[in-house]
Amino acid sequence: MNVLLVLAHPERHSLNGALVDIATRELNSLGHDVQLSDLYRMDWKATVDQADFPHETADPLNVAAASARAYKAGQLTDDVKAEQEKLRWADAVIFQFPLWWFSAPAILKGWFERVFSAGFAYGTGKSYGDGCMKGKLAMLSVTIGGTEHDYSARGICGPIDDLLFPLTHGTLFYTGFTTLPSFLVHSADRLEEYGEGFSELVERYRERLYALETTAPIPFRSAASGDYAPRTRELRPGLEDQNASGFRLHLKTTS
Amino acid sequence: MNVLLVLAHPERHSLNGALVDIATRELNSLGHDVQLSDLYRMDWKATVDQADFPHETADPLNVAAASARAYKAGQLTDDVKAEQEKLRWADAVIFQFPLWWFSAPAILKGWFERVFSAGFAYGTGKSYGDGCMKGKLAMLSVTIGGTEHDYSARGICGPIDDLLFPLTHGTLFYTGFTTLPSFLVHSADRLEEYGEGFSELVERYRERLYALETTAPIPFRSAASGDYAPRTRELRPGLEDQNASGFRLHLKTTS
Repeated sequence: MNVLLVLAHPERHSLNGALVDIATRELNSLGHDVQLSDLYRMDWKATVDQADFPHETADPLNVAAASARAYKAGQLTDDVKAEQEKLRWADAVIFQFPLWWFSAPAILKGWFERVFSAGFAYGTGKSYGDGCMKGKLAMLSVTIGGTEHDYSARGICGPIDDLLFPLTHGTLFYTGFTTLPSFLVHSADRLEEYGEGFSELVERYRERLYALETTAPIPFRSAASGDYAPRTRELRPGLEDQNASGFRLHLKTTS
Repeated sequence: MNVLLVLAHPERHSLNGALVDIATRELNSLGHDVQLSDLYRMDWKATVDQADFPHETADPLNVAAASARAYKAGQLTDDVKAEQEKLRWADAVIFQFPLWWFSAPAILKGWFERVFSAGFAYGTGKSYGDGCMKGKLAMLSVTIGGTEHDYSARGICGPIDDLLFPLTHGTLFYTGFTTLPSFLVHSADRLEEYGEGFSELVERYRERLYALETTAPIPFRSAASGDYAPRTRELRPGLEDQNASGFRLHLKTTS
């Protein structure tokens, strides 16, 4: 398998950097090929703007439309084209980042804004399970300062899977990725400082990497499943688990 | 009142730009003072990295710790200091942005990462209703490509208030802001292209701006409310609305 690792952390000598090293080593030993996009080291341009579309003449600028035109005409910038080429190559993508302000670092957010062009990552009439990334695996690997309690079902920060939903569902599943449950490292600051629990963490991550191709994905409902009413795209009544609400509605029940 | 507007859109001649103009005009006519941080026009550096802490010597870099030290020593960069000064001045902050990939544009995410230093925006042992921004109002004003159905309680994208929770709860309420319900513009692309419904939109926004000081905030539970168990910070049993789950647990019931 070809695996792309996308790293978003300013310090290479960090827990996030170590997790990327572990993934590279482990995946190689399993016979997979690995490429790394280390966004900070690449000095990745985080903001999408007019400079992304050097041939675009429409004024005022409409980012989505400009992105679609530039992609179709092969006129995106070289840095974006290189990332799209890596995505074409990849069978699986792992995103490695620290949870900052309850979401991905800006540099990674900007990677999605610039690389996931209309026409390249998603197309008209296709979404939620049926985008251009169909057939590829994706997984988030996230380090989190707070405790597991903080991010549990009743934790003060909100459930971690719900906080990551704009990425797992809105970005990855939307564009067609088979999205695996996120790999989570809680109390990451303590771990970095004292090294406590690090070997257990390595073992836990190795198990996830080993099972990359056999892990059951997050059971999001696809747009084409028939679970949503055609015009409103609202979930049809009665399909959800009892008492489910919010983002949980969009998980297929196992029964 | 002093109102800071933070705009995150690459095209000034856009619906987002127009909403900032409306806010400026309306707030001025109500006697408020307004400042604008137009992040794209300021060429705002979106990524937090070593360059943010020119005097920091710790190796490897720990962003939160470096940020706390640099803030305390008055050694943050001038662009960050200028934004912090605007926040000190402000009684209210309105964030104007398009929903991109179900969250804020990278340039705005990076504004929070760089400006909300430890010690400036939040402090040890204070969070969720009790940070350094206490006493200030905040509101998101968000343009959204999809329809209201898409983002309704059962809509395929997930409820919009849940998608914005990492910002409203995790970023604004966390640092102490009194966080008002978000101002939402759905089907924004259609609106931009055809101008349909624009005057109704202006009227709806004017009403929200007029009521800025009297609008009931989102009823998030504060960390100090006693609603959370002390050690685990999990919501105590039985406090939530019947059938509430996920992020809804963190809203005070009205009964």
